[in-house]
Amino acid sequence: MPDDLSDIRHQLALANRMLANEGVLDAFGHVSMRHPTDPGRYLLSRSRSPALIEAADILEFTLDSDPVEPPTVQLYAERVIHGCIYRAREDVMAVCHHHAPAVMPFCIAGVPIVPVFHVAAVLGETVPFWDQRDDFGDSNLLVVKPEEGRSLARALGPHSAVLMRRHGATVVGANVRELVFRSIAMCQNAEYQMRALALGSFEALTPGETKLAAAINLSSGPQSRAWDYWTARAENARR
Amino acid sequence: MPDDLSDIRHQLALANRMLANEGVLDAFGHVSMRHPTDPGRYLLSRSRSPALIEAADILEFTLDSDPVEPPTVQLYAERVIHGCIYRAREDVMAVCHHHAPAVMPFCIAGVPIVPVFHVAAVLGETVPFWDQRDDFGDSNLLVVKPEEGRSLARALGPHSAVLMRRHGATVVGANVRELVFRSIAMCQNAEYQMRALALGSFEALTPGETKLAAAINLSSGPQSRAWDYWTARAENARR
Amino acid sequence: MPDDLSDIRHQLALANRMLANEGVLDAFGHVSMRHPTDPGRYLLSRSRSPALIEAADILEFTLDSDPVEPPTVQLYAERVIHGCIYRAREDVMAVCHHHAPAVMPFCIAGVPIVPVFHVAAVLGETVPFWDQRDDFGDSNLLVVKPEEGRSLARALGPHSAVLMRRHGATVVGANVRELVFRSIAMCQNAEYQMRALALGSFEALTPGETKLAAAINLSSGPQSRAWDYWTARAENARR
Amino acid sequence: MPDDLSDIRHQLALANRMLANEGVLDAFGHVSMRHPTDPGRYLLSRSRSPALIEAADILEFTLDSDPVEPPTVQLYAERVIHGCIYRAREDVMAVCHHHAPAVMPFCIAGVPIVPVFHVAAVLGETVPFWDQRDDFGDSNLLVVKPEEGRSLARALGPHSAVLMRRHGATVVGANVRELVFRSIAMCQNAEYQMRALALGSFEALTPGETKLAAAINLSSGPQSRAWDYWTARAENARR
Repeated sequence: MPDDLSDIRHQLALANRMLANEGVLDAFGHVSMRHPTDPGRYLLSRSRSPALIEAADILEFTLDSDPVEPPTVQLYAERVIHGCIYRAREDVMAVCHHHAPAVMPFCIAGVPIVPVFHVAAVLGETVPFWDQRDDFGDSNLLVVKPEEGRSLARALGPHSAVLMRRHGATVVGANVRELVFRSIAMCQNAEYQMRALALGSFEALTPGETKLAAAINLSSGPQSRAWDYWTARAENARR
Repeated sequence: MPDDLSDIRHQLALANRMLANEGVLDAFGHVSMRHPTDPGRYLLSRSRSPALIEAADILEFTLDSDPVEPPTVQLYAERVIHGCIYRAREDVMAVCHHHAPAVMPFCIAGVPIVPVFHVAAVLGETVPFWDQRDDFGDSNLLVVKPEEGRSLARALGPHSAVLMRRHGATVVGANVRELVFRSIAMCQNAEYQMRALALGSFEALTPGETKLAAAINLSSGPQSRAWDYWTARAENARR
Repeated sequence: MPDDLSDIRHQLALANRMLANEGVLDAFGHVSMRHPTDPGRYLLSRSRSPALIEAADILEFTLDSDPVEPPTVQLYAERVIHGCIYRAREDVMAVCHHHAPAVMPFCIAGVPIVPVFHVAAVLGETVPFWDQRDDFGDSNLLVVKPEEGRSLARALGPHSAVLMRRHGATVVGANVRELVFRSIAMCQNAEYQMRALALGSFEALTPGETKLAAAINLSSGPQSRAWDYWTARAENARR
Repeated sequence: MPDDLSDIRHQLALANRMLANEGVLDAFGHVSMRHPTDPGRYLLSRSRSPALIEAADILEFTLDSDPVEPPTVQLYAERVIHGCIYRAREDVMAVCHHHAPAVMPFCIAGVPIVPVFHVAAVLGETVPFWDQRDDFGDSNLLVVKPEEGRSLARALGPHSAVLMRRHGATVVGANVRELVFRSIAMCQNAEYQMRALALGSFEALTPGETKLAAAINLSSGPQSRAWDYWTARAENARR
């Protein structure tokens, strides 16, 4: 794992490009990491599509989502998603917000995503559903105000991901590899769950299976194998 | 934004290639821009598949869809789509006609597309449906005669896009970036709407959400971020 | 159009690669052209996956599907598809047999493909359905014996394409460009028809629309535009 | 076919990359071959995503799935899938375990895959379904313990493939070409079967058709043609 800030910036830029290359992120969406030595700060790119992000684009923010240095570039409007979750969840070290095509139908139909294969046990048993309209009525659906970010963080609660009605999803991780793994596994799970439903029916993993399969998939072997694979694919796409 | 005609030609050629690269245009379909200083003219490529268009292919047409210079190359048969809409809609500066795979099932099933996620709020609340047969009976389904173009423009009315029965769609924009953004968002929305229906059901954004989310998505931040991303992808595909 | 045999061989090799590149052909499937000056012969590759075919792979066959020269290479087992159709249909100058993913569900479900958008009017009103089991009982489903080829040609009748139960489809054209156009349009149509059904329902083009839209799509403008596009894509995929 | 161990290693590395390139394998999954001269050993890569495997990654294992040489690298956790099948099935010379997206919905919905087109007759009439929970209750769903491997091998029985509930599939072959062919054909079949169901209904090939079509598809002509095609595609993807 990276051990200084320059490495962290490279890791975070790479995570952005990996998630773009695997179809989780597109023109929109963003990925952050908590600052490695100051838990009161986080790192996030300037406003740019994830596929294009380089280490030099990464900036530092406080947990109020204010830039630490006066910005000379455009910032993402939805930074509070990151700041509010880092404040509410000490255990979270990386956050991804996305509108992945695999997940959007669930956000629109209001259907829960449940883990239906062993790899996606990393989602945990429950992915809660947040409807911005419940707290704020009609809005532009972006999460921009601190109270919107706090409402989303409350909906996330102790879970690993939260669906956002007619908007997308936000995923968290104990480190950036776990975040990337969970984000991709969630998209695969959504696709398989939809197709299993088209075949007739499905059941989620049992709670016991979910716990056991999450543990093995979050261990270093599977995590490293997958990270190396997605890295190679992202680098190959840039040649 | 481009400020002279040479820049405009490059922008328009690029918009064609971007929309081809994102799966909106294929062998067929075309994109035009209104002339930047003469609102009585518009710019459109010679007859060529959008992925292959270069700035040198772009020609000038009157609003009657006659070429300003005597043509030495083949022209698109369906130019009146562009001329009739520019005549009917002073606010429209760019037009795209396409047969995108995501949208075709709706054109065939006669099912309306409604905005089901925040980005697609740029479609507005209503995408009208035009059936050429209502006015013209059996035809080859192309929009070639001036009265066909006028009928389509009437069906479009004040809206941002119109579905064309068993044929495709026509999308308009206040500028070329907005046009590209709306065309791609419409395809994403169509895909998500179809899949949400497969999951059970869905509702459109509320009218209030549609208005608010359209405004934010049409602002310069999201527009530039997406344009830069699709540009990079289109250029990468040509390397 | 090509005017000598060397050009024909290049055209036919290119047609194979184009149809592979557009997802009509995969490891299997084959494309032939009738000999330009001897209507009693046709041209077909040696046994090879279409994506890999070069002009030098193209051989000559009689309408009995015997090689004109003693072969030194492996030949396709299903040559009689081509020979029997050229014998039965004087107007046919090119034939494609394929197992395209878009078409297979229809071959398996026994559901007819009908033209549901203007470009696919080139299929004509009816695509007949051939079940090898009707004439031959249990078989390996390949079309290898002359009587199998004749049965298939009878099922094709005067039409432009025929579905083959749990096997694939065979498409014909008055020239190789028309064949490529029709083969790709048929796959698009199949995909849109299946998705329109998922949205609720659909109707075919009317007989009048089918006739008029077929005529315009088979005219030189659309045919050349599409051929140039698919050629550019196939060549780009080889770089 | 390869005739020494170095060739075998190259074949096996290539098979891994081919199956990754065709969408059967992703970050996970693995492919093995029985040792060509010692039927009590098999060859399998060190722990690595299949797309990245080179000949130098291939190691030797006993049928107890112990490495023949003390390992200096990480090994796959699920080696017993391979060892237990080679022990139970003398006729099996190659094994693939995967989580292919086409197959996962069937593993989740508990719906059998049956051969619905001639190429997939190589699956045989029956693909059994194994639910790890039947023998072992809640688990992490990986097949790691010898008794888990033996249970899976029993479920496979004399068949060519077995579905694994909410996990994936395991496929076997009399040689590596047959294994690759069957694995890809099974994914195509799954996709077509699901889509045929969406169109209305489907029936499997008859037992007679399955037997006859399997024989022809496993003969050297189709096997070589497909192998050469997938090889060219895998090599092209690495350029």
